[in-house]
Amino acid sequence: MGKDDVIESGAGGGEFAAKDYTDPPPAPLVDAAELCSWSLYRAVIAEFIATLLFLYITVATVIGYKHQTDAAASGADAACGGVGVLGIAWAFGGMIFVLVYCTAGISGGHINPAVTFGLFLARKVSLVRALLYIVAQCLGAICGVGLVKAFQSAYFNRYGGGANSLASGYSRGTGLGAEIIGTFVLVYTVFSATDPKRNARDSHVPVLAPLPIGFAVFMVHLATIPVTGTGINPARSLGAAVIYNKDKPWDDHWIFWVGPFVGAAIAAFYHQYILRAGAIKALGSFRSNA
Amino acid sequence: MGKDDVIESGAGGGEFAAKDYTDPPPAPLVDAAELCSWSLYRAVIAEFIATLLFLYITVATVIGYKHQTDAAASGADAACGGVGVLGIAWAFGGMIFVLVYCTAGISGGHINPAVTFGLFLARKVSLVRALLYIVAQCLGAICGVGLVKAFQSAYFNRYGGGANSLASGYSRGTGLGAEIIGTFVLVYTVFSATDPKRNARDSHVPVLAPLPIGFAVFMVHLATIPVTGTGINPARSLGAAVIYNKDKPWDDHWIFWVGPFVGAAIAAFYHQYILRAGAIKALGSFRSNA
Amino acid sequence: MGKDDVIESGAGGGEFAAKDYTDPPPAPLVDAAELCSWSLYRAVIAEFIATLLFLYITVATVIGYKHQTDAAASGADAACGGVGVLGIAWAFGGMIFVLVYCTAGISGGHINPAVTFGLFLARKVSLVRALLYIVAQCLGAICGVGLVKAFQSAYFNRYGGGANSLASGYSRGTGLGAEIIGTFVLVYTVFSATDPKRNARDSHVPVLAPLPIGFAVFMVHLATIPVTGTGINPARSLGAAVIYNKDKPWDDHWIFWVGPFVGAAIAAFYHQYILRAGAIKALGSFRSNA
Amino acid sequence: MGKDDVIESGAGGGEFAAKDYTDPPPAPLVDAAELCSWSLYRAVIAEFIATLLFLYITVATVIGYKHQTDAAASGADAACGGVGVLGIAWAFGGMIFVLVYCTAGISGGHINPAVTFGLFLARKVSLVRALLYIVAQCLGAICGVGLVKAFQSAYFNRYGGGANSLASGYSRGTGLGAEIIGTFVLVYTVFSATDPKRNARDSHVPVLAPLPIGFAVFMVHLATIPVTGTGINPARSLGAAVIYNKDKPWDDHWIFWVGPFVGAAIAAFYHQYILRAGAIKALGSFRSNA
Repeated sequence: MGKDDVIESGAGGGEFAAKDYTDPPPAPLVDAAELCSWSLYRAVIAEFIATLLFLYITVATVIGYKHQTDAAASGADAACGGVGVLGIAWAFGGMIFVLVYCTAGISGGHINPAVTFGLFLARKVSLVRALLYIVAQCLGAICGVGLVKAFQSAYFNRYGGGANSLASGYSRGTGLGAEIIGTFVLVYTVFSATDPKRNARDSHVPVLAPLPIGFAVFMVHLATIPVTGTGINPARSLGAAVIYNKDKPWDDHWIFWVGPFVGAAIAAFYHQYILRAGAIKALGSFRSNA
Repeated sequence: MGKDDVIESGAGGGEFAAKDYTDPPPAPLVDAAELCSWSLYRAVIAEFIATLLFLYITVATVIGYKHQTDAAASGADAACGGVGVLGIAWAFGGMIFVLVYCTAGISGGHINPAVTFGLFLARKVSLVRALLYIVAQCLGAICGVGLVKAFQSAYFNRYGGGANSLASGYSRGTGLGAEIIGTFVLVYTVFSATDPKRNARDSHVPVLAPLPIGFAVFMVHLATIPVTGTGINPARSLGAAVIYNKDKPWDDHWIFWVGPFVGAAIAAFYHQYILRAGAIKALGSFRSNA
Repeated sequence: MGKDDVIESGAGGGEFAAKDYTDPPPAPLVDAAELCSWSLYRAVIAEFIATLLFLYITVATVIGYKHQTDAAASGADAACGGVGVLGIAWAFGGMIFVLVYCTAGISGGHINPAVTFGLFLARKVSLVRALLYIVAQCLGAICGVGLVKAFQSAYFNRYGGGANSLASGYSRGTGLGAEIIGTFVLVYTVFSATDPKRNARDSHVPVLAPLPIGFAVFMVHLATIPVTGTGINPARSLGAAVIYNKDKPWDDHWIFWVGPFVGAAIAAFYHQYILRAGAIKALGSFRSNA
Repeated sequence: MGKDDVIESGAGGGEFAAKDYTDPPPAPLVDAAELCSWSLYRAVIAEFIATLLFLYITVATVIGYKHQTDAAASGADAACGGVGVLGIAWAFGGMIFVLVYCTAGISGGHINPAVTFGLFLARKVSLVRALLYIVAQCLGAICGVGLVKAFQSAYFNRYGGGANSLASGYSRGTGLGAEIIGTFVLVYTVFSATDPKRNARDSHVPVLAPLPIGFAVFMVHLATIPVTGTGINPARSLGAAVIYNKDKPWDDHWIFWVGPFVGAAIAAFYHQYILRAGAIKALGSFRSNA
């Protein structure tokens, strides 16, 4: 079948005939062999450590910043000396860049239950691996925030413990919407960065996967820190809520699980069925068989 | 013809004799086959979604920042807590980096009618594709700003809705000039980053296309936010003007279409006729034939 | 031995059977040939110059910032004009990025005794090279801070000379813990970025080594500048303490050697025995022989 | 000659025996063929346009920032809204990143007479090309600052026109030293990034040339904006001095030519004779012949 035949008249299905890349097969729900391999447990440990470091650095930045800008504690001339919301957004985005870079070869570099959920929906990781990752991420987040509390005991509760909750003046629907769109941006970037099609076809697009993923996190924090403090990572919200343990973060806590998981699901759907044209591809293969 | 013959004595035309790269043929104005392919519509959808996300994140950052720095709302000690003009510039530049990275393999990653116009002038996209992209970008921008208004209803109109207009103290000519030069910087970077000649000849220059494009947007915002709020993207200006819908942005609105389109045209001319030496190349091939 | 045999039932050891990469042999403790080569001394000179430039740029940024934000010296309206803690964090992280990039091909780009110590523990550099590097780094740091004192004599002592010491309100244990975890983040990133396994197996992970290393330094500074001023580099702390030469930095100085060395040792252990599975690999080869 | 023979006992000269890279021959002082090629004039035009854009964006950022932070003009609550010294440093560093990326394939991406001078000393460009570049850079800088003055006529002179001069409290020697070391950092990075040896031997070091060069400029601005406003680029200082045309910048102007040229010369010497071991290599080849 020559290149001239690729574009057919009636339907776009023909363009999938001459693929120059290979999609890996869907991951099984339960992979028994995987359970016996050290690489699975090593990956779970890496996710635990990475999420711990992520929460430790970012929540320490938040607490340190609030302490510095507290006029009563530091004096007026230091009011602008802190890292600011911009610095906090850099801390979240930059740590994701560093940690995705470090763990990509070990665990795939999720560090976020919403990312794991999105990749599971797209059948890129098995159910068992996804569950183990999510448990490891949540435990890591709790330990990371716990470390900050241990180190900053004088300031931790005074400055809100880095916990996510709705800012005054915003409704629950707004917070949920902000979390859904924010997580969509992140998981869409993750899918774009790890697409096997892109590597094969678009050689002019470099494969700098961790950098745009980190920037996506940075951008979403710039936009939604004033609204919800920016979750887009249920482990991050859970860790801070468990250690801070006040009513307000727990009341809003469902937003930071429902929002990210819905956003990740929409991103997985968008990537698999619109951009990768799964729907039409399925239709095309149906027609070919008929 | 040996390498020693390449540099001729009388004219520079001979240096084009031994090309080590291939220019793709100019895109046709109307490509019938293209209209029947799913990849065109997928690209239009990707441009719509990307421009929506671009406006959502950036205008939310602008509104959130203005709310935070409003002393009446937040108290004086928070006056420095916002992300600042620097954070706003990062939001625009960083989102372009992320979205160009994500959509480059699907649609080419324009996200800006001025970029589409410049690439159309250089015959890199067909007329049909250019028109569809521009319509999708404008609709996406309107929806993106609309989302911010829905989420931030209390603050959206109070803080100017992220709309572009001339700051007091600047003439229309200044605003137009700032938009022309700003768009020139952006489209010049886009042409440099996607030049087929560069990939072939300059192996020491890495092909990090989306990163310098995002930085170009970041730089232009640093320089011209105090003058016009920085458009350099007619879809971004249109989306904010439609949703904000006040007289001042509409009065100045022509600047944010004329300026970017003129700047993009100059960049296309500069790249094709000066840097790629289209004029002399044409002359050279004329001489060879004679 | 086919691919199907790779995953064995009882132990994970089999997965190491079909390696697609080569670990370099451990560096000897003393390599006589190395001592006679110009490349060793060139590397020592490069470490000296790089650490000098690192301390010069970063301490000058700290002093200049404190001078600008000092309301008495600059007037109240300039209080926000300085680069802020965010700018200081960028100075440390960005210089590490630039200098690791510049010296990676000459000396490996350590610029930090803790990194040298971690790589020595992992047997990536010889004992002799490690000792020479650490001496060069310390001398370079002293000279770099000395240059700042010479240029900024009016402000150097007034603004603390960029020396590391515990902020008031934090215990020694907290400072030590912050230094250990911070150095762990840095040295873990260094190990991840230079892992021969990653280059061979994970082609979708780009090898942008210096950029994530610089970002790791940036992140740690955002988080711990309010606690200790952030050392994570004994040469940096020593250089500032020697030139500033006041009691407080000298009293806390042991923290900035013990913390980084412990953190680097934990990172080396984590990378070699958990992520690279040295322990199980050793067990596996034992079983194979038995 | 086998690999075992490479390290000789008495001298390090033998390590140059088995080179896996090729140094290009030194550029001639005057290359007649070059003068007849369009690519030289195209490169000169590209340097002119790039330096114009560099000065336009950066000086506009400086003027806009000073206008915003002027409490009398904007009201006290906007005092922190400007981009700050951090934003100005980003403007300089980021524009160099973008413009080096864009012009690297056309002219080599100097945009700075000190860089051109350093590369000329290392015999990487011919004398004729170096002189034409420097003239184009100076004219471009003057035009770029002129554009800012035309657009910002109300504020240009009031806020100092972006001109470099010594801040009060610093001696001429300090300013000269700061310029020398700052330019050394920049030109050392340029040499490291474009070294043919690095590309061949160190495959784990990616060739991200424009990014570290831009970061080097960013870092030097963070450190020395409080001292001299940071020149490290004679064309930038000349352009601002010509358009602003006040006594103070002209009195100090020699610092911004002597400092950068001395710094570039030291960097060229350091790279060619210490890191590339030109001295010992020459000695080694002498011994081989004897």
